[in-house]
Amino acid sequence: MAAAYGAVSAESGLVPLTLARRAPKADDVEIAIEFCGLCHSDVHATRGEWGAQNYPLVPGHEIVGTVNRVGSAVEDFAPGDRVGVGCMVDSCRECDSCLEGLEQYCENGMTGTYGGKDSRNGGAITQGGYSSSVVVDSRYVVRVPANLDPAAVAPLLCAGVTTFSPLRHFDVEEGDVVGVVGLGGLGHMAVKLAKAMGAAVKVFTTSEAKVPAALELGADEVILSRDEDAMAAANRSIDLIIDTVAAPHDLNPYFRTLRVDGALFQLGLPAEAMPPVNPRSLMRRRLAYSGSMIGGIAETQEMLDFCAEHNLMADIEMVSADQLNEAYRRMVAGDVKYRFVLDTSTLQAPAEEADA
Amino acid sequence: MAAAYGAVSAESGLVPLTLARRAPKADDVEIAIEFCGLCHSDVHATRGEWGAQNYPLVPGHEIVGTVNRVGSAVEDFAPGDRVGVGCMVDSCRECDSCLEGLEQYCENGMTGTYGGKDSRNGGAITQGGYSSSVVVDSRYVVRVPANLDPAAVAPLLCAGVTTFSPLRHFDVEEGDVVGVVGLGGLGHMAVKLAKAMGAAVKVFTTSEAKVPAALELGADEVILSRDEDAMAAANRSIDLIIDTVAAPHDLNPYFRTLRVDGALFQLGLPAEAMPPVNPRSLMRRRLAYSGSMIGGIAETQEMLDFCAEHNLMADIEMVSADQLNEAYRRMVAGDVKYRFVLDTSTLQAPAEEADA
Repeated sequence: MAAAYGAVSAESGLVPLTLARRAPKADDVEIAIEFCGLCHSDVHATRGEWGAQNYPLVPGHEIVGTVNRVGSAVEDFAPGDRVGVGCMVDSCRECDSCLEGLEQYCENGMTGTYGGKDSRNGGAITQGGYSSSVVVDSRYVVRVPANLDPAAVAPLLCAGVTTFSPLRHFDVEEGDVVGVVGLGGLGHMAVKLAKAMGAAVKVFTTSEAKVPAALELGADEVILSRDEDAMAAANRSIDLIIDTVAAPHDLNPYFRTLRVDGALFQLGLPAEAMPPVNPRSLMRRRLAYSGSMIGGIAETQEMLDFCAEHNLMADIEMVSADQLNEAYRRMVAGDVKYRFVLDTSTLQAPAEEADA
Repeated sequence: MAAAYGAVSAESGLVPLTLARRAPKADDVEIAIEFCGLCHSDVHATRGEWGAQNYPLVPGHEIVGTVNRVGSAVEDFAPGDRVGVGCMVDSCRECDSCLEGLEQYCENGMTGTYGGKDSRNGGAITQGGYSSSVVVDSRYVVRVPANLDPAAVAPLLCAGVTTFSPLRHFDVEEGDVVGVVGLGGLGHMAVKLAKAMGAAVKVFTTSEAKVPAALELGADEVILSRDEDAMAAANRSIDLIIDTVAAPHDLNPYFRTLRVDGALFQLGLPAEAMPPVNPRSLMRRRLAYSGSMIGGIAETQEMLDFCAEHNLMADIEMVSADQLNEAYRRMVAGDVKYRFVLDTSTLQAPAEEADA
């Protein structure tokens, strides 16, 4: 049994729960969770804003902890290892995407870390990382480098790899100019990662108040996106834009800041329709309007190793279990720099465990 | 002086005109025009549908003819050579795009073959290929391979290179699957070119009547885009879509037919806004929604050489000057397979020339 916090209905907010985790099978790793990042997706999912959910639902897909025990066939991990789990805990392992290490695009649908149907485990609904432990197939577990603060690593498992993946896909390197739209959990990681890859970084924000913070994160320039002159001055100056804004916004002014063969990767998913992209914006410079989701498992490990090499972590604010609902309110209000992380030692021990 | 057909106002239709062409300067080639393709852009431009125009306006940017005389510095062309001119006759020659052979994306704006401001020639407005002759800087002239029918080559200078360029940019080769949306001047060339590159081709059309024609052009499969079952059956089966439709249409169903890392290149430019692209369509397979315009000069030559190697030409219907207005009516109605070409021998000789 595991202590947890989750929603019991779309309106319940987060309440203390007890979860039954499966005993590790041959390929499984049982992880004692230390930290779990709070992602905007968690808010949408627990509130049923992205479609009907099975309740109770324990969110959390930015998990860091230590290995408690491993199944008989596990060779890559041993008790005591510090490990991480991101947004998926399984996929079909057979389709072209899975075989290419793009499990996030599994043709048969990857299994989300929470709220997913765990077909290899009797179709149980997966439960996430706001919990004291989790059992995950070792193929979907990554190693956390020893030189990084484990709490500040947690957000890398979603926010980190989600921004790392398109930067790598576009082969960002020294001499490139990367634009980052929005400065939240994803945006602040995009700035750090792009800088570490050697790019110059321009941050777009609607808020003058965010200018000092953007510069502090390493941005070379901050552009107020509602200032038409500033946007015009950025004309044809950027190779790749990482757009992390999850509210509908007009992309056409951003396309004008891209060079020929530039690309804009949208990573946030607004609930309402985006304003239409003018095809002329794309045609006149052969631009690509793209999007992507997290990264594959091998790429997640590559991202962690890259962060270890460059000593990169998320900027976090730690919360205890009893602060989770307040943290959700602050996330929705944009009042966090830049990611909340739950300290799972503050979860109540389940009664059953206390009895054992 | 040159005989020509052009518009004298947005409402005039095409009427006989006489043009004064400049005497060839050192780098110029004077071309006796034999054939000129009729492009949809010509209709929009002469009618002022893409913004205010200077009149008179002689359209035509799919020009094939023979060299009449050359300027003193021209070494690549000699009288009697068969040559072509496409959509541009100049560009700045200094910006990164020009230096990379992407003159169509010239940062200072390329000079269109008609209706463009010819800054190196006193700012005169360029006049196009519905004409008995034209004088063009040799840098913007390409060589027409001897084994191709020159009339059927004319449409390659716009419709050919516009589809060739994204196919090459995406490195289409044997084993790839290319989708083609729309079967007009551009679409029919996209089918031929993609097949010649070794790809399998699926044509999307709204019209059951076009199925036999698509198969005759070489399509491996024809999908009726309004048939939801047929669209569902094409799920995740295509690497690259060349979309040639210039009317607003919903792209989201097409994205579902693309494989991971697939791309859709939009080449037609609707006058009204397109329905919004759902970013989720892009994110769930890391797709790119792109667009491009024609091709560079070197790429245009490469396209012609490719067509010579594969014996590829446009399917054309020849028209005489007095049939131009009727041909425009039929183009707007979609009643052409697949490109009209003007036989410039049917232009009236200018009175001045007759006097000489």
